Amino acid sequence: MEEAIDIYDIVIIGGGPAGLAAAQYAARGTLKTVILDKSSTAGALAFSSRIENYPGLAHPVPGKELLDIMRKQAIDFGAEYVETQVVGVNLSDEIKEAMTMDRLYSGKTMLIATGSMGRKPGIKGEAEFLGRGVSYCAVCDAAFYRGLKVCVIGNSEEAVKEAGVLTRFAETVYLISPTAKLHIDDHPVLKEPNMKLLLGYTVTSVEGKELVEKIRMRSSEGKEEDLELAGVFVYLHGNKPVIDFLFGAVETKEDGCIPVSCMTETSIPGVFAAGDVTCTEVRQVVVAASQGCIAALAAEKYLYKRKKFRMDWAK
Amino acid sequence: MEEAIDIYDIVIIGGGPAGLAAAQYAARGTLKTVILDKSSTAGALAFSSRIENYPGLAHPVPGKELLDIMRKQAIDFGAEYVETQVVGVNLSDEIKEAMTMDRLYSGKTMLIATGSMGRKPGIKGEAEFLGRGVSYCAVCDAAFYRGLKVCVIGNSEEAVKEAGVLTRFAETVYLISPTAKLHIDDHPVLKEPNMKLLLGYTVTSVEGKELVEKIRMRSSEGKEEDLELAGVFVYLHGNKPVIDFLFGAVETKEDGCIPVSCMTETSIPGVFAAGDVTCTEVRQVVVAASQGCIAALAAEKYLYKRKKFRMDWAK
Repeated sequence: MEEAIDIYDIVIIGGGPAGLAAAQYAARGTLKTVILDKSSTAGALAFSSRIENYPGLAHPVPGKELLDIMRKQAIDFGAEYVETQVVGVNLSDEIKEAMTMDRLYSGKTMLIATGSMGRKPGIKGEAEFLGRGVSYCAVCDAAFYRGLKVCVIGNSEEAVKEAGVLTRFAETVYLISPTAKLHIDDHPVLKEPNMKLLLGYTVTSVEGKELVEKIRMRSSEGKEEDLELAGVFVYLHGNKPVIDFLFGAVETKEDGCIPVSCMTETSIPGVFAAGDVTCTEVRQVVVAASQGCIAALAAEKYLYKRKKFRMDWAK
Repeated sequence: MEEAIDIYDIVIIGGGPAGLAAAQYAARGTLKTVILDKSSTAGALAFSSRIENYPGLAHPVPGKELLDIMRKQAIDFGAEYVETQVVGVNLSDEIKEAMTMDRLYSGKTMLIATGSMGRKPGIKGEAEFLGRGVSYCAVCDAAFYRGLKVCVIGNSEEAVKEAGVLTRFAETVYLISPTAKLHIDDHPVLKEPNMKLLLGYTVTSVEGKELVEKIRMRSSEGKEEDLELAGVFVYLHGNKPVIDFLFGAVETKEDGCIPVSCMTETSIPGVFAAGDVTCTEVRQVVVAASQGCIAALAAEKYLYKRKKFRMDWAK
């Protein structure tokens, strides 16, 4: 018996745009495909209240809606969708395994598409106003704040750069650093006329009615202050790639992201990675979906070569 | 005077998914953006009668419809769209220029997104039945031919591989080579039980009513034969990247494609390339759109660094 019946051609971990695009391409290409998704309502896209810059969208839609369509496409093309959490993997043999609390999923190839997640919302009102003034992505949402006042909370180079994107749209950008110094010496963005630097302030709450109207903050001397604004961009810890379940089985960089080739190959043959879990410079839905598409075709090629090898060997 | 008023931040040549996605991202990021498009109704996507595998499509649509939405998005975000043909470029100075018959378009950056086109349809009925049985992309369209008879016309390695994709869907795949030998010695695909090799046959016409019903072919001995089938995949010359207007200004590979980095950079700083004109392994709409998105952000970064350099220099 060469292969058990329940070995998938590809086991996809993650049900965001990368995983679902991969599933759609793999299943459409007749690969036996399973998607293991922690939650159909979580993840960076599901949490986006409004997406307008995905190519091909006739109108802006909530991220969840776009995600639901992508999931339906994958399932319609024949992919199996299972809502379950992967707690561990075994990638050291030819057949790759993903462990959940219930069972083991075995695949000839595996795709890691678990995305990245920010820290848990920690400021009072932050979770409540997510998508209604609170955002974690300036490139995604800056255009919604044309002529308005916004703040960026953070002190990293990423926070400064994202504030720079916002200066091109917003009337005023407050860069609010919890520390007395930024983690970057100088940056031309800091000289933009509509950039105001507030050092040593802790934002204690985000407030408003339907939408964000103001924040409350405390200076290092303990003085409370209100600041009226429409947008709050939180860059307190940056995004963390979701790789805990891998336990080091795949090579990652210092910040946890998985380096991949242009064809989405990881350090392990037959194991691919796509979307925000990779060391991508561009965290956009269309880029994640494209990487998923490429991963499916790369997996197909890998399977095909293996088959060819076996045929040659069997001569 | 540092810069004339009519210098664009980015001049985009080509109005397919790569060019339009780039335009949308660039314009949304407040870059002064122009798209120079030979024709809004031509190109590989415009000619696709039915797209179902673009992630996020709720229903299959004609390629032209998806393209129209992408164009509207780009224009709504502020990109200028001009239907005109670029006949030459000047990329040797800091400001890049695209020449049309009417005027010169100058940009601080340039994106080449002109796609690739097959040879002109040469078989009788080929143009008429394009999208109604005639296709140039097995990966795109194989799924529509489940359980049906199809043929692949060609003798290249690409033709053989694409026939391999079709064997997983179609009842029978006829690989029809105009020559007595294929341009590939052996390939496991040729051993698939539903693959039939026809060597030395010239297909003279594609026939049918609404959809393709049969082809007529002539053997090397001059005998005419009919073959009933539903799909005709033409791989007679492969796709040729559209680079004639460049006159060698950008480095290309032997077959004309433009090699790019993962960030879509070409051999010339400030000049980017995206979509099917690049040496991509995956010719899919979502991949082209993603490359366009990445190109826009790469161009933005390039412009920003130049600005930073000037500011440092001006100190």
